[in-house]
Amino acid sequence: MPPGTLVYTGERTRDDKVTLSVFDYDANHLNEIPFDSVDACLSRCETPTVTWINVEGLHDVGVIERIGKGYGIHPLALEDVLTTQERPKIEDYDDRIFLVVQMLSWDDGSQSIATEQVSFVLGPHFLITFQEPAGDVFDPVRKRLREGRGRMRRLGPDYLLYALLDSIVDSYFTILERLDDRIESLETELTDIPGPTTVHAIHSLRREMILLRRNVWPLREVLGGLDRGDSTLVQAETRLFLRDVRDHSIQVIETVETFRDLLTGMLDIYLSTLNYRMNAVMKVLTIIATIFIPLSFVTGIYGMNFEHMPELHWRWGYPAALAGMFGVGGVMLWVFHRRDWL
Amino acid sequence: MPPGTLVYTGERTRDDKVTLSVFDYDANHLNEIPFDSVDACLSRCETPTVTWINVEGLHDVGVIERIGKGYGIHPLALEDVLTTQERPKIEDYDDRIFLVVQMLSWDDGSQSIATEQVSFVLGPHFLITFQEPAGDVFDPVRKRLREGRGRMRRLGPDYLLYALLDSIVDSYFTILERLDDRIESLETELTDIPGPTTVHAIHSLRREMILLRRNVWPLREVLGGLDRGDSTLVQAETRLFLRDVRDHSIQVIETVETFRDLLTGMLDIYLSTLNYRMNAVMKVLTIIATIFIPLSFVTGIYGMNFEHMPELHWRWGYPAALAGMFGVGGVMLWVFHRRDWL
Amino acid sequence: MPPGTLVYTGERTRDDKVTLSVFDYDANHLNEIPFDSVDACLSRCETPTVTWINVEGLHDVGVIERIGKGYGIHPLALEDVLTTQERPKIEDYDDRIFLVVQMLSWDDGSQSIATEQVSFVLGPHFLITFQEPAGDVFDPVRKRLREGRGRMRRLGPDYLLYALLDSIVDSYFTILERLDDRIESLETELTDIPGPTTVHAIHSLRREMILLRRNVWPLREVLGGLDRGDSTLVQAETRLFLRDVRDHSIQVIETVETFRDLLTGMLDIYLSTLNYRMNAVMKVLTIIATIFIPLSFVTGIYGMNFEHMPELHWRWGYPAALAGMFGVGGVMLWVFHRRDWL
Amino acid sequence: MPPGTLVYTGERTRDDKVTLSVFDYDANHLNEIPFDSVDACLSRCETPTVTWINVEGLHDVGVIERIGKGYGIHPLALEDVLTTQERPKIEDYDDRIFLVVQMLSWDDGSQSIATEQVSFVLGPHFLITFQEPAGDVFDPVRKRLREGRGRMRRLGPDYLLYALLDSIVDSYFTILERLDDRIESLETELTDIPGPTTVHAIHSLRREMILLRRNVWPLREVLGGLDRGDSTLVQAETRLFLRDVRDHSIQVIETVETFRDLLTGMLDIYLSTLNYRMNAVMKVLTIIATIFIPLSFVTGIYGMNFEHMPELHWRWGYPAALAGMFGVGGVMLWVFHRRDWL
Amino acid sequence: MPPGTLVYTGERTRDDKVTLSVFDYDANHLNEIPFDSVDACLSRCETPTVTWINVEGLHDVGVIERIGKGYGIHPLALEDVLTTQERPKIEDYDDRIFLVVQMLSWDDGSQSIATEQVSFVLGPHFLITFQEPAGDVFDPVRKRLREGRGRMRRLGPDYLLYALLDSIVDSYFTILERLDDRIESLETELTDIPGPTTVHAIHSLRREMILLRRNVWPLREVLGGLDRGDSTLVQAETRLFLRDVRDHSIQVIETVETFRDLLTGMLDIYLSTLNYRMNAVMKVLTIIATIFIPLSFVTGIYGMNFEHMPELHWRWGYPAALAGMFGVGGVMLWVFHRRDWL
Repeated sequence: MPPGTLVYTGERTRDDKVTLSVFDYDANHLNEIPFDSVDACLSRCETPTVTWINVEGLHDVGVIERIGKGYGIHPLALEDVLTTQERPKIEDYDDRIFLVVQMLSWDDGSQSIATEQVSFVLGPHFLITFQEPAGDVFDPVRKRLREGRGRMRRLGPDYLLYALLDSIVDSYFTILERLDDRIESLETELTDIPGPTTVHAIHSLRREMILLRRNVWPLREVLGGLDRGDSTLVQAETRLFLRDVRDHSIQVIETVETFRDLLTGMLDIYLSTLNYRMNAVMKVLTIIATIFIPLSFVTGIYGMNFEHMPELHWRWGYPAALAGMFGVGGVMLWVFHRRDWL
Repeated sequence: MPPGTLVYTGERTRDDKVTLSVFDYDANHLNEIPFDSVDACLSRCETPTVTWINVEGLHDVGVIERIGKGYGIHPLALEDVLTTQERPKIEDYDDRIFLVVQMLSWDDGSQSIATEQVSFVLGPHFLITFQEPAGDVFDPVRKRLREGRGRMRRLGPDYLLYALLDSIVDSYFTILERLDDRIESLETELTDIPGPTTVHAIHSLRREMILLRRNVWPLREVLGGLDRGDSTLVQAETRLFLRDVRDHSIQVIETVETFRDLLTGMLDIYLSTLNYRMNAVMKVLTIIATIFIPLSFVTGIYGMNFEHMPELHWRWGYPAALAGMFGVGGVMLWVFHRRDWL
Repeated sequence: MPPGTLVYTGERTRDDKVTLSVFDYDANHLNEIPFDSVDACLSRCETPTVTWINVEGLHDVGVIERIGKGYGIHPLALEDVLTTQERPKIEDYDDRIFLVVQMLSWDDGSQSIATEQVSFVLGPHFLITFQEPAGDVFDPVRKRLREGRGRMRRLGPDYLLYALLDSIVDSYFTILERLDDRIESLETELTDIPGPTTVHAIHSLRREMILLRRNVWPLREVLGGLDRGDSTLVQAETRLFLRDVRDHSIQVIETVETFRDLLTGMLDIYLSTLNYRMNAVMKVLTIIATIFIPLSFVTGIYGMNFEHMPELHWRWGYPAALAGMFGVGGVMLWVFHRRDWL
Repeated sequence: MPPGTLVYTGERTRDDKVTLSVFDYDANHLNEIPFDSVDACLSRCETPTVTWINVEGLHDVGVIERIGKGYGIHPLALEDVLTTQERPKIEDYDDRIFLVVQMLSWDDGSQSIATEQVSFVLGPHFLITFQEPAGDVFDPVRKRLREGRGRMRRLGPDYLLYALLDSIVDSYFTILERLDDRIESLETELTDIPGPTTVHAIHSLRREMILLRRNVWPLREVLGGLDRGDSTLVQAETRLFLRDVRDHSIQVIETVETFRDLLTGMLDIYLSTLNYRMNAVMKVLTIIATIFIPLSFVTGIYGMNFEHMPELHWRWGYPAALAGMFGVGGVMLWVFHRRDWL
Repeated sequence: MPPGTLVYTGERTRDDKVTLSVFDYDANHLNEIPFDSVDACLSRCETPTVTWINVEGLHDVGVIERIGKGYGIHPLALEDVLTTQERPKIEDYDDRIFLVVQMLSWDDGSQSIATEQVSFVLGPHFLITFQEPAGDVFDPVRKRLREGRGRMRRLGPDYLLYALLDSIVDSYFTILERLDDRIESLETELTDIPGPTTVHAIHSLRREMILLRRNVWPLREVLGGLDRGDSTLVQAETRLFLRDVRDHSIQVIETVETFRDLLTGMLDIYLSTLNYRMNAVMKVLTIIATIFIPLSFVTGIYGMNFEHMPELHWRWGYPAALAGMFGVGGVMLWVFHRRDWL
């Protein structure tokens, strides 16, 4: 297919309707309008105030295309909007800044991380967000918009972008906590009764770590690009805040690296524990065998049926044989003791 | 041999004819001409419109040389065209940009990646591609050229170059999917009945990973060089698209790195599984031996043929011996149980 | 919560009072005033002399907020002050430089490193430090201020900042010494009687190393940023000193890396020691079993009750059998000896 | 010794004579003169044409010194000429460029890489090469000079330098092929009957890899320095060619890295193969022991000589005992089968 | 303690006297004066010629302080002079360049590397060196000064600094040779009879490697800083020489890295050798046990005392039993042979 062809690559969910919700605000007023049709939205959204258009549901390519045309979004950006599982990235089309970011959530069912792609288009007076219907991560931002306190309503769409990115990065920390819990429970498992399931759990956790890492490393660059870029769409005041989110993303990265280190260390512990146990088991076997095999040999000798075996007829032959055998056994135990095998 | 000496280093295929096909187009017209002789091609290809010359088959050095002379290609570039297995690279000869890229395909027979080298020469009005006869990867591009929709026909040879590179990088994703399938099937094998074949499969997969990596890492630089370079042969509009392919190549790289990580982890799992099984086997052996070897020793004692063994003549000697032995065995089982060996 | 919302994330300690202590000095005078209320402090601290305000206890958000307003500290900085466990960082707000640093101390109880966050706000005539009530690390600095010798009183708040940072980094070396002791005692343990506890000790030490590393790596950048930054708040004379602390922080990093290397090597030693012991144990078992099992087989043969076994009736049958068995045993010992198994 | 003191550090070969051979050429003429004495050479070599002086044999320090003086070579450069085993390097002394490079060859006897140092001094009209008597790697270059085809004779000494460097780097590929063969034969060995010799072979191969790497990594920088440097001694036309050799050196580096990866992987395979075999061996032992040790215990019981053992006198005692034993054995085999041990 | 407080942190040696020796020279004259008191030295050392003051012994803080004051050395530099075990560093105080370097020597007693700190202060007409009394590494430099040949006397104190640094770096190569010897002897040990001592030797060697690395890595930067710095204290002519020492330090680094690689490889060999031996031992055990345990079971059967065992009364029962047992044993051997276990 030619580049710029719009195809939705995500899973098609049942509810077929794409919903558009618009927040139109300045420091004093806030208009919150849900839309059914794109055209209605396009015709009414050209205001000098800040406009945030949130598009939930990406399966209707026609809707996305019309929004793209209405707001002058580059076809390549639209393609990326629809290609879920895109790597986080930033693209500066002069008068539009386009961002792709992955929203992460912990799926309790599969004990793994689920990803939802969110795309942002920042223009002079508006911010458009595209997402699959899922997240309530943006709800606190909506609430703050409605309440109208703080900087939120006073500043432009770049600050809104920051606020949304901030809430996404904040949600990463929740996932880190979950992973931390899993690691800790694995560590206690390791000291108790580690088995093959422990290793598989470590392996699948490492998998999640890799996934997380792939999403957060480029995110740092994206946030850095937004802060350092020379676009006039991002105000100096907002850059300070962007730097703060970027610091948070670095903290996420460092925690992930720490977790990876810990997991590697845990595998080492598992292997050395196995080895140590094998050692212990082998020692027991060896001690038992080394003591009794020679003694059994002696009993075998006196169990032979030769006609002429003088010892058998001695008066104290049996007690002597017993004494000899126990003596040898005792000496062996003493040797093992001295070699620290007991 | 002196540098610039042209020698074909690939395998000589049976069909000896080098085929040239030319697309000559602008926004309104498209001429598609297959050529038999190089001279005919050279004499008729000097048009102000965009000319795409595709050379299929590299074994006829003379043909390559004449094309090189006709289009002012640097001898070193021609040498690279013929040296298959060249590292992906870009070379900017002022009024010609030369690129070498590897086309990858999955060979089901040997379960490995096969490479085909493709070279590009981009000039002011033309693009020449050299390839060994194999790929139908370019067919979609040809189809789009014939249909004449989109940007394709409107823009210059640099956009055509982009479109071809894009279709090559897209084909990498197909290979990644194949590798992903292999990795997943290996993972289920690991949890079931891993054997030496599993390890060899992991090893050969790592080999393919290394091959893939060696081709994609430099490709990223090549695409980056094309985008950032200051050549006038690449239009600003095309650069945006080149950045997009480059992002895709980075995605390929990251997936490959992820796969490598997973394969390393799988080896660890394999080793620890082996260790664990050995542990289990050794425990069984130890338990059996530890219980029965001492008991056998007791039977050995009463199997001795000493004349004077009072126990043998006791009325309850035999039942007492049996009871004693079973008692010892039971105690041992209990000890093993307490030490968590059962 | 919106960014800039002030929430204290640390543990709430029992003593509820936030204490403010102020040092106001120049080369000739020193005023040391403890404050109860923030307002009193704010109204009396606007002097042309150097003012160091130390805020001990962070749980009273209102106090922090009023200080922030009184001294023009950016809300994001205030948020970081309260978010303990923040990554060390530096932020340059033109006329204020904000720093977060972690103070480390060795907790003998849990045998691990405890962290306390310290934040600094450097202004034209003042330095504000925020810390949780714990450290007496700053006491030597206070003493030097009171004594008034050296550069301390002559130079501005930037030198005071340096002196405090220096005392923090110096305290890191104490921790390194503790870790060094632990590593050495583990090494002697390794050559003596390594067991699973050794591995767990190595693992938990690695954990501390990771924690230390996460705090010192960014600290280096922070100190470098302070030195290289072009803020007028830091005098040229102080920069020389800052470079010196930075060198110390690099030394800490290198020591940590060395420790990590050593710990990895210790794990290798542990594993190979286990393997070697297993080898030794197995050899003993094999030698015993290989010698006595065949001999026992021979005794078994002559213990059979067949009617017609001519050997049993031979005059020298028994001595011959004994001699044969000891002969075979001797030969085996000799073979083992030649194969270096004894 | 003071720096610049000339001492030959290589092995002294038997033939004591240092031989000088001179090629003096321009596009139309070629003079090939062998020299016996340095002075004769010095007096006759000041021509406006390109002069290539090849010095074979470095043990006569006096000769080297006189050449150095005659051609204005810096004492430090002369010192490096004589210090064989020098790291590849480039030094730009304004009107002289000095290069040290290692020529590598595969020594079939010791199955390892042998190195020969070659030094180059590039001046405005001349190129001096110093080498120990060994290589015929330069012969093809000499042949091309004599034949006078191509660019060779038309361009200056910088192109000659390029041609010589190119032939050296080309010879690296021969070594890579040898190493590749060794690796492949080791891989088949691994799947067949790996033993300790395999590991030692892998280890010694890694050693060669390290050696190769130490020589090729700096070579890349050297070639890059020659290309990017702003010396007027290197013409723009030659720089294109130098970039080509540099690409080749990168290809060598990447192949070496690939080999290292493969060798590491092979060690892993070896270890896991050993582990797997041990597992198989242990299983056999355990099955045999687990089946027969309990059965032997039963035979031991009925081999005891108690007077009162009723079973011994039963009519069907013997068959019943046999049947019981075979039954137990059969059940055990069935259990092993179900646990996938057979 | 405040920064700049002078405390000697090294070991206090018995000889309490700090000795000062002065070389005062230009191209024509050389004055060599040993001093007892600092004041005498200070008063007589202000000459326009080059003055090299060597301070041996650092335990007398007063002496160091007076020298520091006399020659305008920054207090931080003086502090570093006294803090032995300082990381190699360079500090440019405009009209003074301060360097710290570690002198290394091999201590045969403890089979480890001993370090001695040397500090340099380079001023316009003088060089001051501070060292603990130990090294005769500088003696060759003194000899060359006295002989007055070469550049030494003609050039300034920067060249003297170079000569001293060069002799220090040269001494590193001696240590590398020692380490090389140790590694080689360990390698032969590995192929012969590796034991736990081999592993400990490898570990302690790695330790030395880490120490060496920590001293040489920063040294490279120090030498690079000296060469690239824009201080007028270092002449252009000397910079060429400094580049040469820097190349040597890089060579040291690369050798150390190679050694580390080799040592890691040796550990792998050790582990796989252990594993292989265990395999061999286990095979012997398994073969013996697998052959004889079933046979012993047969003898056990015919050793039972049942009344009604028809086989016992057969004429050829005994030979048949023997033949059967040897037959089974033979078949087993043949099976083992086919499975490549013998």
